[in-house]
Amino acid sequence: MNSNDIRRAVEQRWNSLTKPPGSLGRLEEAITRLAIQQGTPNPSLDRKAIYLFCGDHGITAEGVSAYPGEVTRQMMLNFVHGGAAISVLCRRMNIRTVIVDAGVKGEPVEGTLNHRIGEGTRNFALEPAMTREQAQRALDAGAAIAHANSEDIRAAGEMGIGNTTSASALLCVLTGADPFDAAGPGTGLAPDGVRRKAETIARAIAFHKPDPSDPIGVLAQFGGFEIAMMTGLLIASARQRIPVMMDGFISCSAALVAQAIEPAAAGNLIYSHQSAEPAHARMLTALGAQPLFDLAMRLGEGTGAALGISLLEHALALYNGMATFAQAAVSGPDAKADG
Amino acid sequence: MNSNDIRRAVEQRWNSLTKPPGSLGRLEEAITRLAIQQGTPNPSLDRKAIYLFCGDHGITAEGVSAYPGEVTRQMMLNFVHGGAAISVLCRRMNIRTVIVDAGVKGEPVEGTLNHRIGEGTRNFALEPAMTREQAQRALDAGAAIAHANSEDIRAAGEMGIGNTTSASALLCVLTGADPFDAAGPGTGLAPDGVRRKAETIARAIAFHKPDPSDPIGVLAQFGGFEIAMMTGLLIASARQRIPVMMDGFISCSAALVAQAIEPAAAGNLIYSHQSAEPAHARMLTALGAQPLFDLAMRLGEGTGAALGISLLEHALALYNGMATFAQAAVSGPDAKADG
Repeated sequence: MNSNDIRRAVEQRWNSLTKPPGSLGRLEEAITRLAIQQGTPNPSLDRKAIYLFCGDHGITAEGVSAYPGEVTRQMMLNFVHGGAAISVLCRRMNIRTVIVDAGVKGEPVEGTLNHRIGEGTRNFALEPAMTREQAQRALDAGAAIAHANSEDIRAAGEMGIGNTTSASALLCVLTGADPFDAAGPGTGLAPDGVRRKAETIARAIAFHKPDPSDPIGVLAQFGGFEIAMMTGLLIASARQRIPVMMDGFISCSAALVAQAIEPAAAGNLIYSHQSAEPAHARMLTALGAQPLFDLAMRLGEGTGAALGISLLEHALALYNGMATFAQAAVSGPDAKADG
Repeated sequence: MNSNDIRRAVEQRWNSLTKPPGSLGRLEEAITRLAIQQGTPNPSLDRKAIYLFCGDHGITAEGVSAYPGEVTRQMMLNFVHGGAAISVLCRRMNIRTVIVDAGVKGEPVEGTLNHRIGEGTRNFALEPAMTREQAQRALDAGAAIAHANSEDIRAAGEMGIGNTTSASALLCVLTGADPFDAAGPGTGLAPDGVRRKAETIARAIAFHKPDPSDPIGVLAQFGGFEIAMMTGLLIASARQRIPVMMDGFISCSAALVAQAIEPAAAGNLIYSHQSAEPAHARMLTALGAQPLFDLAMRLGEGTGAALGISLLEHALALYNGMATFAQAAVSGPDAKADG
């Protein structure tokens, strides 16, 4: 079936169910879209996975985060032991969790997939965050992870102290945003910290003179290993027709890069939420995204994505489980009432 | 513990968990509020129920709905047989469903709680929807249902062809809204139907000359049996300290009446969503409500409330299940970074 046939079949099913047409609002749209993405009028959400990409950032030397860099590694251990927010959500939703070490400082951690590109990126205030070859290796690793796995839906989450600074810089370069609009508090910077962060980004852009028509070059200059690897996963997932539920500011920065490298990848993404990071709204606009909810969350890790999958699961249960007008002997709209 | 102590204890717990303070946004606030409502820093959502109040409306004679009046009864049967949207959600979320016949035309239906005040209300375009004595009986029945049951959280849902017209009229009288702002498409009226609906409400208000300082009188003039019974449940639930998850336009109209009768009742309510019914936004403002999400739903039945409970359950799992900074040996914010 082609996309038009699938859309028609799904809309017909929705309209046959005992409710006014369209009254489940965006839940109906979300399932219609999921069906088109999966290429079937009977979409499934049985097999779910989240890929948690972790990486350290040299830019933390500039004092751009409220937390010390060691927290990346500590939180990766917390993921392994099941104590983080995303661990709790994945456990109760039966989402398989894959923790990917994309380049965290220190020894490799048992229980994580080792795709370490380096021990953290370089400080992009002073030099490119990574070499072009490293950026390409990270993209390839993300694609390899995607192709080595299969599920009905996957989510992209991340952990990396300093990575909102990378994400803001990518937003500036790829959309022309001003650093003072693109930088935000991240994990909780005070206003003077946000100002320093914006200045750091502005100086780095002036220094690197990035070429927005070369997204892999931009990724090498400002990105993180986890952002690059996520980008690779997003592009490969589109080829696999495995929809990806996006999370917040960082995962969407990977979507921006993915869209710049391969525009078709964007159609495979589902946007869970608008986060409290101020520039996320602008980033979502650049992606043409309409997120499902806004709960002022700003945790990352894929926590918003997990809640987005939960909503989709409710929507799919309605799509599959409701009685039709015929089954329930319920009357349709009364033509007379409308005149 | 008093409310301030509970708030402090809950906030302390949230801030001890491995995430930046406040980064779970409104999920944190929602649990803090739930704890205060339940009167304990360890709130529970184990026992959940939804009360589905059904009633017929004489005002349907004016052609104010896209569906014929028989649909109320047909959908009540659909609830009993488990085929409706709310049935699907309650099944998968383990929410006990109580179907209350507040006054549906025809014989009582097995599997429903019989609290029938009459066989539908009168046509309020021509006479009061019910007598004051009927309104009081419906309020008392709602309170009796509340007191006969106990759970950690309950939701108020409804079914009643014609009841958006009642809800819009209540909004006009209790907040001074203009009928042409307060009337909307409901289940799916075309624009000329919406205009007729607004005119019907405007004429009825001119005819009844309601006194907004007498909310029970207003309820009798314009209400529905299901709206009145829900109002009774809302007021009683506040006394029981059982939080009520609100749904859309109709359930919020009951909250407006409850607030007018007993202002303290409003503090016990949780608002799940803003619906696609245009005047719901105005109604939520009048209630001082900040709903959790907006998915352009307009189905009623408590479907938005069920999704709201699902979100609360995720939030509570995070509150109870995440590791603390001490347990996970994760560093706190880096004082140096900010300053």
